[in-house]
Amino acid sequence: MALIVQKYGGTSVGTVERIQEVAKKLIKHQNEGHNLVVVVSAMSGETNRLLSLANEINDRPHGRELDVLLSTGEQVTIALLCMALEQFGVHANSYTGGQVKILTDNTHNKARIMEIDDNKIRTDLAKGRIVVVAGFQGCDKQGNITTLGRGGSDTTAVALAAALKADECQIFTDVDGVYTTDPRVVSEARRLDHITYEEMLEMASLGAKVLQIRSVEFARNYNVALRVLSSFTEGGGTLITAEDPKMEQAVISGIAFNRDEAKLTVLGVPDHPGIASQILGPIAKENIEVDMIIQNTGSDSTTDFTFTVHRNDYQAALKILTKTAESLGAREVAGDDKITKVSVVGVGMRSHAGIANTMFETLANEAINICMISTSEIKISVVVDEKYLELAVRALHNAFNLEQIS
Amino acid sequence: MALIVQKYGGTSVGTVERIQEVAKKLIKHQNEGHNLVVVVSAMSGETNRLLSLANEINDRPHGRELDVLLSTGEQVTIALLCMALEQFGVHANSYTGGQVKILTDNTHNKARIMEIDDNKIRTDLAKGRIVVVAGFQGCDKQGNITTLGRGGSDTTAVALAAALKADECQIFTDVDGVYTTDPRVVSEARRLDHITYEEMLEMASLGAKVLQIRSVEFARNYNVALRVLSSFTEGGGTLITAEDPKMEQAVISGIAFNRDEAKLTVLGVPDHPGIASQILGPIAKENIEVDMIIQNTGSDSTTDFTFTVHRNDYQAALKILTKTAESLGAREVAGDDKITKVSVVGVGMRSHAGIANTMFETLANEAINICMISTSEIKISVVVDEKYLELAVRALHNAFNLEQIS
Repeated sequence: MALIVQKYGGTSVGTVERIQEVAKKLIKHQNEGHNLVVVVSAMSGETNRLLSLANEINDRPHGRELDVLLSTGEQVTIALLCMALEQFGVHANSYTGGQVKILTDNTHNKARIMEIDDNKIRTDLAKGRIVVVAGFQGCDKQGNITTLGRGGSDTTAVALAAALKADECQIFTDVDGVYTTDPRVVSEARRLDHITYEEMLEMASLGAKVLQIRSVEFARNYNVALRVLSSFTEGGGTLITAEDPKMEQAVISGIAFNRDEAKLTVLGVPDHPGIASQILGPIAKENIEVDMIIQNTGSDSTTDFTFTVHRNDYQAALKILTKTAESLGAREVAGDDKITKVSVVGVGMRSHAGIANTMFETLANEAINICMISTSEIKISVVVDEKYLELAVRALHNAFNLEQIS
Repeated sequence: MALIVQKYGGTSVGTVERIQEVAKKLIKHQNEGHNLVVVVSAMSGETNRLLSLANEINDRPHGRELDVLLSTGEQVTIALLCMALEQFGVHANSYTGGQVKILTDNTHNKARIMEIDDNKIRTDLAKGRIVVVAGFQGCDKQGNITTLGRGGSDTTAVALAAALKADECQIFTDVDGVYTTDPRVVSEARRLDHITYEEMLEMASLGAKVLQIRSVEFARNYNVALRVLSSFTEGGGTLITAEDPKMEQAVISGIAFNRDEAKLTVLGVPDHPGIASQILGPIAKENIEVDMIIQNTGSDSTTDFTFTVHRNDYQAALKILTKTAESLGAREVAGDDKITKVSVVGVGMRSHAGIANTMFETLANEAINICMISTSEIKISVVVDEKYLELAVRALHNAFNLEQIS
């Protein structure tokens, strides 16, 4: 008998019928002998409905009140799911974040979980009840309602699993697991049975948006076994855990990519200490997130500085950079919003030489020009012209034999 | 500077625009120097929307989960109202029932308030903030969400006023006060500046549904000055307080009536002790509320027993009564669902003889037959054929000179 925390997102509980389907699934799992704690999101569309009500009234609503408003979305779902379970004859209790004391800091709209009081949950589980907890929300020390930010329900589930020392935290989504790459690009893409937290982090941040990065970090920090599964189809999904030294690792786990990148370069900047922060400071001040950063020093005591941003931020970033470049006495500003980032990810590459070489060779063989390169311990990313995206991903998927079960 | 608790119902906060209007009104009152605590209901329609979601899932939803669900309605309103106040530059804090510790018993869906912790509210008021509290809800000792039943927001407001020792509790509705009778029936009907709790209780229970009976009882028990005003028009409304011995009371305050009555009679029941409970027991068991009850003993050791019920319950009550009559060996069952109840109400009648006589004479002059009579210390009610309703009310309104300011 295992203690399992399950999380169902907004699409999985988007209608009365789907809530009933989730209830049936829970009863099936309970009948298999498991203790169940269930975290649910707001019904799909609900959070946006509430947000637009808020925006009709106040263009910059106060964080505290926004949390009071938004947290009602999940509260509706927990009540309805418990009613569905009761209708099928199964006892269940619902709890808001405040009620099970998911204690957070007081950063409204993106609070961080500090502590969970698992007392009520354990009491209910001991009575054979299914416990249903509102995702995305908690309360601070003063009892003010807080929310964890979009996608926070995944974090709630992982935090509960950590507090309860659950055997597994299962995230039910609309995909049936993590793939070696996007199956819409490479039809041979294969579902991975198992990857490490680190690989998942690199995959997630690179656009394979199956899980919220934050919940994966949380799972890694507390060593929670995390599983991604489909709400709508059967299957074992993908298990995400720490690296197992006994297990032979695949060298490369997957090919991630991100279509929404744009790059900006300032050419011929006088090369002196502090230049990077002078360039990126004004960008950060406008809350534009920077992804890759590359700097190369030339011979004439000037340097070229390149970075990438989300494509939506391209025009704003270009405007800021042009101003900065002028004040720094740089030669020129260039940009390109028709680029894409492709990355190979795998913990195995740490102990295998030549991965970078295979990657660059593969791209060269396809005559794909590499604009930027960036590496981490378990990832190599390249920026290429967006027209080469599919070609690059397919060629790399093939070169690393990802279609074969390792 | 007064401390005022104000309550705005579902219609008053039914749209974003109306919420903004309420915010403006609050700011005006604050600028007049008042400390304000505001209780709001769910936006009109919201409670029904939530209820129908629940009923789609479970035909008899568990009380605990229904409360979790329904309490979100008011939670949405408190957040939106605070956002509207902030937009106008006024600081406000919202609280759910659980957050200000409106402690109730654990009778879900119709909980009773036991205690209120006014600590947070007083702290906010001292900082010059407007405090917005969700009506209709509280929590029990274990922290479970409870609701007070329909119309419970009035009760929340009165309970807060009692706990805070507020100078006045103002209930904003869609009528501008309590009238001597329904102005749609008697165009000369006059708004009362002042009536007593007892009169209001008799008026409310008789169909002048301006305030929830329960909140008036609560106000009387804690001696809270209660005022009914319109959300949409200016004016002083009607103040409801304890009887003021210094004040000359009007003999009669108003004429109330109830269209939705039906009467049932069982004729020729053997007259022995316990007969009343044998007749009404099966009715009560089906949760049918009985209003007036009259029993007359005949000469032949049998009795006639008559009572009234809500017209919606007439058929059900008739069926039950027919069965009961058979088992009791009664002669006959009769019924009439085309009746109406008309009452004259006034604390003044306690010290004035002849009110009943004036009433009966007035009705006799109009050739209106009286089917039933029932009296209390401050009320005389008669049941008449429903076709005489308007005629009876107008004649009585005129006979007691209610159109003139007393």
